[in-house]
Amino acid sequence: MIDETAQVGESVVIGKNTVVEEHVMIGDNTSIGHNVVIKRDTVIGSNVYVEDGTIVGRIPASNKKMARKPSGELNPLSIDDDVQIGCNCVLYRGSHIDKGVLIGDAASVREHVHIGKNTIVGRHVTVENNTTIGKNVTIQTSAYITADMMIEDDVFIGPCVSTSNDKYMGMKTIPYAGPVLQRGAKIGNNATLLPGVVIGEEAIVGAGAVVTKEVSPEKNVIGNPARTMHS
Amino acid sequence: MIDETAQVGESVVIGKNTVVEEHVMIGDNTSIGHNVVIKRDTVIGSNVYVEDGTIVGRIPASNKKMARKPSGELNPLSIDDDVQIGCNCVLYRGSHIDKGVLIGDAASVREHVHIGKNTIVGRHVTVENNTTIGKNVTIQTSAYITADMMIEDDVFIGPCVSTSNDKYMGMKTIPYAGPVLQRGAKIGNNATLLPGVVIGEEAIVGAGAVVTKEVSPEKNVIGNPARTMHS
Amino acid sequence: MIDETAQVGESVVIGKNTVVEEHVMIGDNTSIGHNVVIKRDTVIGSNVYVEDGTIVGRIPASNKKMARKPSGELNPLSIDDDVQIGCNCVLYRGSHIDKGVLIGDAASVREHVHIGKNTIVGRHVTVENNTTIGKNVTIQTSAYITADMMIEDDVFIGPCVSTSNDKYMGMKTIPYAGPVLQRGAKIGNNATLLPGVVIGEEAIVGAGAVVTKEVSPEKNVIGNPARTMHS
Repeated sequence: MIDETAQVGESVVIGKNTVVEEHVMIGDNTSIGHNVVIKRDTVIGSNVYVEDGTIVGRIPASNKKMARKPSGELNPLSIDDDVQIGCNCVLYRGSHIDKGVLIGDAASVREHVHIGKNTIVGRHVTVENNTTIGKNVTIQTSAYITADMMIEDDVFIGPCVSTSNDKYMGMKTIPYAGPVLQRGAKIGNNATLLPGVVIGEEAIVGAGAVVTKEVSPEKNVIGNPARTMHS
Repeated sequence: MIDETAQVGESVVIGKNTVVEEHVMIGDNTSIGHNVVIKRDTVIGSNVYVEDGTIVGRIPASNKKMARKPSGELNPLSIDDDVQIGCNCVLYRGSHIDKGVLIGDAASVREHVHIGKNTIVGRHVTVENNTTIGKNVTIQTSAYITADMMIEDDVFIGPCVSTSNDKYMGMKTIPYAGPVLQRGAKIGNNATLLPGVVIGEEAIVGAGAVVTKEVSPEKNVIGNPARTMHS
Repeated sequence: MIDETAQVGESVVIGKNTVVEEHVMIGDNTSIGHNVVIKRDTVIGSNVYVEDGTIVGRIPASNKKMARKPSGELNPLSIDDDVQIGCNCVLYRGSHIDKGVLIGDAASVREHVHIGKNTIVGRHVTVENNTTIGKNVTIQTSAYITADMMIEDDVFIGPCVSTSNDKYMGMKTIPYAGPVLQRGAKIGNNATLLPGVVIGEEAIVGAGAVVTKEVSPEKNVIGNPARTMHS
């Protein structure tokens, strides 16, 4: 079920019941599992693993109620060399995944996202559209990365962290603003980040904290609402 | 792999490796992806999209420890016209999805659920059984909608919101009661709603709030436990 | 697509587009859905259900940034009699699932995990590696069970509960320590447990609580940070 317009490199392994659509390009030594769908035009590098049941290159949908309509024609999804993608993931068209990234099972990454080199996107993580993620970032299991968010290099995001980008919850039409996590910031598990908050370099947000305003570099915050810990 | 008892309308597109079981009905101009499973008896309208890897019409399971046994014979799952269903979803038999609803990737909807017109159910959202969701509701990514819950029209539920319906956590046999979200209520991301709380019309629950009792209409609450903000 | 080295018992039903790899063993009266992947060497008992789209026996992956490399050769995944596994799950090689366990849709269980008899692992639950779960435990929808965690018999874990095991968030190389939940402990929905906390027998953690230190047996705690309720 490999379309005749697809280009497949040398020593590529493709599992059973896998669908490779029109104009897909796959580099050498790449391994694709069973029951995978590679949507049209997707570009996959060399030494990449795509595990069973994953869908890459999905085109966004929308209905009448959605605030933002998907943008017109998106660039193909591009996956660099040495990337590993788990089982049952959904990755959208219009994004770029750098070399050496690892994406866990059932993770989902929307359009217009860039993921930097060697970053880890954990299992069941969801990344919304228009978000930029740096190099060597760790996003742990089930964290939620909203749209319009900036995550710099070496950031650590614990499991179940929740972010948001719309302070009026659909009531007003304003520019959305996701949180900004500066270099080396660390966010504890199940912390909540409000729209547009800036977490400074090397700052630490405690587990379960609810961050309603800026956290200065190297500060630690805890609680609901989050306050600076004085040591 | 379309069973001979299935009825398929005109101009229907069905992907590769898709299984359409006995007595399924599919309306005109509907598009079904690759590696999809349409379980027996499911009724799908016209102009519907079902993306790759999704399973519709699943029958509930149970084991020895479960409090509630699944009810006997459920009606077929019914999906109205113009519904869009993402990739890798699991939708159960016994529910009804109204016209124009959008369901995101990897969402899961149990039995005895009704979803109103043009509502959005985000990616990775889970909806338990016996819950009613109104029209024009937005449920954002990874929110958890418990059983026995009532969500009225125009409600907004932020990402990662968590609800519950059993105040004794399995210790007693009582009638379960999920939260009630009245018309236009808005719930911030990662808020926690306790069993049976009522959130009044146009009330706002802040991000990360833990709501332990009723919130009056048009009030705003924040904190843990949630308290009314005085402006 | 059943490999010729697989051993399949009597009265086994296997759906369409399902892949059964080398040396798999399947007991009598077991039912496997459509689009399932059973990875090599997996051992499945009798009267087991594996629903559509599920992957069992996955081998772990890792990239350059990961703290722990996967251990070498893992034992095959072993699934005892009367287990029920939902749709779109991902279960890893190297774990053992006891008789009568129910695993919900889209749940994911890593390597070196043991799940005791009749326990329920809810939909969208993720269980990390090296965790032990007792008998008759309930883990509700979307809860996150970290690595190196001990969950004793009869524990109740509400929906969206979040746990963690690394108090330095990747900054130091220390032995990881997940929470310990002693017999009959009950954890409310969306509660946050910090690394290594011990929740005593029959203790109750309220919904949305952030537990930073030990909870004595039979005590109730609520709030952020969690404090004992005096009745």
